[in-house]
Amino acid sequence: MAHDADFRRELGQQLRVDSVRSSAAANSGHPTSSMSAADLMAVLLDGHLRLDYSDPKAPGNDHLIFSKGHASPLYYAVLKAVGAIDDAELLTFRKLGSRLQGHPTPLIPPTDVATGSLGQGLPIGVGVAMAGRSLDKLPYRVWVLCGDSEMAEGSMWEAFQHAGWEKLDNITAIIDVNRLGQTRETMLGWDLDGYVRRIEAFGWKAIAIDGHDVEAIEAAYTEAENTVGQPVAIIAKTKKGKGVAAVEDQPGKHGKPLDDPEAAIAELGGSRDLSVDVARPSTAAPNVFEVPGGSMPSYALGDEVATRKAYGESIAALADIRGDVVALDGEVSNSTHSEDFRNAHPDRYFEMFIAEQQLVAAATGMQVRGYTPFVSTFAAFLSRAYDFIRMGAISQAKLILSGSHAGVSIGEDGPSQMALEDMASLRAIHGSVVLHPSDANQTAQLVAAVADYDGISFIRTLRGKTPVRTAPDEDVRIGGSRIAHEGSDVAIIACGITLDEAVKAAERLAEDGVHARVLDAYSIKPIDAAAVAAAARECGSIVTVEDHAPEGGLGDAVLAALAESDEHAAHVVKLAVREIPGSGTPEELLHGAKIDADAIADAAQRLVGAPA
Amino acid sequence: MAHDADFRRELGQQLRVDSVRSSAAANSGHPTSSMSAADLMAVLLDGHLRLDYSDPKAPGNDHLIFSKGHASPLYYAVLKAVGAIDDAELLTFRKLGSRLQGHPTPLIPPTDVATGSLGQGLPIGVGVAMAGRSLDKLPYRVWVLCGDSEMAEGSMWEAFQHAGWEKLDNITAIIDVNRLGQTRETMLGWDLDGYVRRIEAFGWKAIAIDGHDVEAIEAAYTEAENTVGQPVAIIAKTKKGKGVAAVEDQPGKHGKPLDDPEAAIAELGGSRDLSVDVARPSTAAPNVFEVPGGSMPSYALGDEVATRKAYGESIAALADIRGDVVALDGEVSNSTHSEDFRNAHPDRYFEMFIAEQQLVAAATGMQVRGYTPFVSTFAAFLSRAYDFIRMGAISQAKLILSGSHAGVSIGEDGPSQMALEDMASLRAIHGSVVLHPSDANQTAQLVAAVADYDGISFIRTLRGKTPVRTAPDEDVRIGGSRIAHEGSDVAIIACGITLDEAVKAAERLAEDGVHARVLDAYSIKPIDAAAVAAAARECGSIVTVEDHAPEGGLGDAVLAALAESDEHAAHVVKLAVREIPGSGTPEELLHGAKIDADAIADAAQRLVGAPA
Repeated sequence: MAHDADFRRELGQQLRVDSVRSSAAANSGHPTSSMSAADLMAVLLDGHLRLDYSDPKAPGNDHLIFSKGHASPLYYAVLKAVGAIDDAELLTFRKLGSRLQGHPTPLIPPTDVATGSLGQGLPIGVGVAMAGRSLDKLPYRVWVLCGDSEMAEGSMWEAFQHAGWEKLDNITAIIDVNRLGQTRETMLGWDLDGYVRRIEAFGWKAIAIDGHDVEAIEAAYTEAENTVGQPVAIIAKTKKGKGVAAVEDQPGKHGKPLDDPEAAIAELGGSRDLSVDVARPSTAAPNVFEVPGGSMPSYALGDEVATRKAYGESIAALADIRGDVVALDGEVSNSTHSEDFRNAHPDRYFEMFIAEQQLVAAATGMQVRGYTPFVSTFAAFLSRAYDFIRMGAISQAKLILSGSHAGVSIGEDGPSQMALEDMASLRAIHGSVVLHPSDANQTAQLVAAVADYDGISFIRTLRGKTPVRTAPDEDVRIGGSRIAHEGSDVAIIACGITLDEAVKAAERLAEDGVHARVLDAYSIKPIDAAAVAAAARECGSIVTVEDHAPEGGLGDAVLAALAESDEHAAHVVKLAVREIPGSGTPEELLHGAKIDADAIADAAQRLVGAPA
Repeated sequence: MAHDADFRRELGQQLRVDSVRSSAAANSGHPTSSMSAADLMAVLLDGHLRLDYSDPKAPGNDHLIFSKGHASPLYYAVLKAVGAIDDAELLTFRKLGSRLQGHPTPLIPPTDVATGSLGQGLPIGVGVAMAGRSLDKLPYRVWVLCGDSEMAEGSMWEAFQHAGWEKLDNITAIIDVNRLGQTRETMLGWDLDGYVRRIEAFGWKAIAIDGHDVEAIEAAYTEAENTVGQPVAIIAKTKKGKGVAAVEDQPGKHGKPLDDPEAAIAELGGSRDLSVDVARPSTAAPNVFEVPGGSMPSYALGDEVATRKAYGESIAALADIRGDVVALDGEVSNSTHSEDFRNAHPDRYFEMFIAEQQLVAAATGMQVRGYTPFVSTFAAFLSRAYDFIRMGAISQAKLILSGSHAGVSIGEDGPSQMALEDMASLRAIHGSVVLHPSDANQTAQLVAAVADYDGISFIRTLRGKTPVRTAPDEDVRIGGSRIAHEGSDVAIIACGITLDEAVKAAERLAEDGVHARVLDAYSIKPIDAAAVAAAARECGSIVTVEDHAPEGGLGDAVLAALAESDEHAAHVVKLAVREIPGSGTPEELLHGAKIDADAIADAAQRLVGAPA
């Protein structure tokens, strides 16, 4: 099936020409960053990649990820060469409505994930390779084209480290060392040995080659395919803008179309119309995890259970029901309680150590293959992977994030461990679901619900125990809420730890003749807009209370819901954590932050005009 | 001044005893993670560290950063041994109001920064070392105690990489390889060679030693101090819980006080009351950058200038006025326009390459020494450093972040490059200022204003040009706003690119007899609450419009301000980016997202009840 070196060189030129053409048509884009890697892709397509482009979801398909997503002109030129798109579509690059966006996205199959934020493709590729080896148990290979500038990203080294530790031999990183970044030479320039030393130190085999020598590329790919028990990186010395003297290895030529595309195409030998038959993938069926079935855990009313514990028990139970469920943790599984999953399903648990970017990226890679990943760490440390979560939304990824130890209620450990910005940052992610159950039965039902949600969801859990107030058979759902205390003089909207404080406040207010409704808004996004509006309508005024910063969390969600309702005139007072907390007991810190029962009762009293 | 090995061993035991005592008093904390590094600290204090604890701000002081912040019991035991705190304060560890929080913070001098989110101390230390060599030009040394678990964080490798590239010989990393993480053995366990290979591959010298052998430690520190042109890492094999058989090198002993502290103290030889005179630092005066003075740039009304360009020109001008101003960029200086600063002040510009965590961390390190760092990259990519920004607030750091290329208005590059969550995530940071100027004169004034702001500020800039509407002498300030179009039938509140669209909408509405007020809310946090309330009071209803997700940005800021005002009954309609954008021209994408003049005019018409 593979062709000779001349064909491959011609194919490389075609990929360059098409990169120049699409960028010229768009009047923007990164042709020079594409031209450096054209020969690397030509040889890959011709005999190495095993991918059925007519069946992008085929389980046995190899995966080709452009970690250097700005080389999208090359990626789309590849798609044309393999027949996945036609020339007319190639020339829609970067135009409104085109599947060929400025950087690759899953809008154009078989693209697995969106790239364009550097340093993400390789760690995600590691996740796909982990799925191949440990979940699907299929012989597909993950090929990741990396830029040399992105080698500066720490996330790349998390990927090298994790793949080396796992001895993943089904991933090949191709590093396009074209020396030139956006504004200057990279840290290592053409010091191939520098890359080899670093990558080998992390347990990989590294092969340095001339990235424009198709025979050397062939030999390197063959060695990568034949290497057992170790991932392989190919360090390819290339020239940015290779083949066109006006831009070849020239500074100042990043991220712009060529000044004279016609002359460049002529210099490259003109347009070609080569097509390449990519090798067929394995047709073996993927592994299926047999599951015994069972039911989600339930908890007796009045029991005291930490929601993080309920989370662990719930994901373990869910994995008995669904074979697609997997779990990953950032080496805090005894805190998040994902250890319950690890103990029950060690074959579907992945220890990602303290590397939160690789943690989220691995999950993103696994969901590419249809798995439903539950990712856990302290909620505060999900902030480490915020760019990966942001990109996950563009990748249309299904990711379930669980953050434990939220808010000041963790107590003594102090502010570095307290998530106070998590709801705000994760609410702003497109299509996200943000949940903060106040008790164990809510947690169990929400764990089951998010497993069916096709997007990014976040379950915020608590360190301390809370009383079970939700009956096991109550309806708990994404977008739902529950009334935890009846009343119509004033409404208190709470979630998580503050629900308990709100109920205490309501009980205290009742003694003073003030009947407060307590709404448990366990779903912050989407919020139960009808219940919020009803609270406003029937109670007149609202206190919101959250163990979170005042910006972007529960209170703002309530205000936004009211603004879109007929009840926008309702008076709302927001209680939230307004100062940097310190250490102390949970009770002391909730009190100090003015989000405890005392503060809630006080705010409610003032709203109803009763003496405080 | 230095003592013999016996004294140092005794001092190490004292540090262990005090770690056990404080954790016992707190009934929480990480004594075993402290005990592994006690000998390393004993030798450091006795003859190597040069730090005047009685003058924590002395410019010549060495810096000691506990990157493994959970070893706070050891850190506080050190403070006691050097006389910075007394024994009574030691026993306030983790109690409400104590300066000795669960993880170190600057509340207790001379602590430079808060740690506790792993993988941050070393990159911040690199920033302090950069300040020492390139800014202060003083001979102080930065000592960073690192854990072995945190070696999994990519940010550590950004730090190794950057310090190696800079050949910083004034930083010493001390890696406490105690083998055991929170739940299990680390990836490398006691494979010291594995650490040595990796760290040396990044250009450092690495010295592997027995971390409980005070003579070996002495030799390693001396070699580190004498090494020129290369940073040094000391890879110390240690035992977690060293010295107490019940916990020494035992799993399951992370993050909890000892079961029997009295027996442990007895096993360690009982309490001691050693004190150590730390060596005095250099008293040389720090370098001062002489500045010629000058004025901030100003722009003529009606000119079309990109705010990112005004940012670059403004920081360059500010550095002529203030010698404390420095700039750092993530290798996109021709996009953010920090290149204007680099060209004018190459001695105060730092190229951080595509490593956003190290970018922010380096700035955090520089502000430790009193510099005012302006940090720039694409706004989308600041999300990569979100945890560093979060911790920056706890560190009471002064950081100015500038994010360019915000929102769909960047056009063809597509969603991976478009910041749409930045205002939400950064508003939630404690004490932050979030600014989004709509024109060049605003930008210039706000650049000057944030240089005086003692906290974290964010300036969001635009890729495309906008007309200068603000006169050079107009008052522009943090917390300010301006009326860009007069009217009282309806208010439109906009910022950045949408201000221009709002003015166009207002002009169009005026033709239909609807007089809209356009408020330019260039300060999103703090928002000009008085102007927002006046808009509500005088115009009745409000349209907010932002090139950002609907959650947590301008619209939510307006709603929150109104909720706290007497105008909470005002009707507000939020326009924002509600779907994942694609590629297209800026105009197409603004239109498609329904945040352009058409959408604004339409929303305003509906609010005033006029025909659309």
